[in-house]
Amino acid sequence: MNIEAKAGSSFTHTFRFSQADVEAFAQVTGDTNPLHLDAEFAATTPFKRPIIHGMLGASVFTKVLGTQYPGYGSVYLKQTLEFMRPMFVDTDYEGVFTIVSINPDKHTAEISTEILDSQTRKVTTRGVATLMNKEKF
Amino acid sequence: MNIEAKAGSSFTHTFRFSQADVEAFAQVTGDTNPLHLDAEFAATTPFKRPIIHGMLGASVFTKVLGTQYPGYGSVYLKQTLEFMRPMFVDTDYEGVFTIVSINPDKHTAEISTEILDSQTRKVTTRGVATLMNKEKF
Repeated sequence: MNIEAKAGSSFTHTFRFSQADVEAFAQVTGDTNPLHLDAEFAATTPFKRPIIHGMLGASVFTKVLGTQYPGYGSVYLKQTLEFMRPMFVDTDYEGVFTIVSINPDKHTAEISTEILDSQTRKVTTRGVATLMNKEKF
Repeated sequence: MNIEAKAGSSFTHTFRFSQADVEAFAQVTGDTNPLHLDAEFAATTPFKRPIIHGMLGASVFTKVLGTQYPGYGSVYLKQTLEFMRPMFVDTDYEGVFTIVSINPDKHTAEISTEILDSQTRKVTTRGVATLMNKEKF
């Protein structure tokens, strides 16, 4: 078990997406909702400008959990997601991961997952991940 | 309100992903977990071969909800996800969307979201989406 893998320990990862990332995500997933791609359409919405797909923002959870914290060997079991505020391109965000509980018998953990705007500190997305990792938990 | 937008109505969308899709998803999200990309590593896991990122499979939810059912104008509020069974490339899956409840005052709906293997009919991923759509709900 990793020294950091105990309830209450946390990990932060800073990230940002570009409009090219949004377009690549739209292409691979097929989610071509104009809210994400069409500035003219987005201007007619309460958001005023294109927002990132909520699932693209939330993909920082699978990225960090799968590759960094706890990392390789992780198997994703569950994720809850609340899309609380819009996210925009070319903006710094922080993914904050906090271990809520570990079940050593099952090699699973519940990890609180949040995205904050690096400047305003407001939470844009939050949820809880459940992971299995036989080496880390 | 769309004629289909009532509790109990449902919509099915068939889809599949290729290994190129998995690689594109890994690139845009940064989730380079070898479980999805490296056949040699995956052979050492209980899955025996590379599995699709759970979030890539679940992206069919944002795709269909954002572009088809209920479609444009949808704003994603919440999504729960349970990754119950692995998903593989070059395999047909069905996304099944069933309206659980509509709140016309808030223009929101809860929609059950499931992915089934088209052949075995086993559920690979399930959850509930909460959406706002001012024109459809």
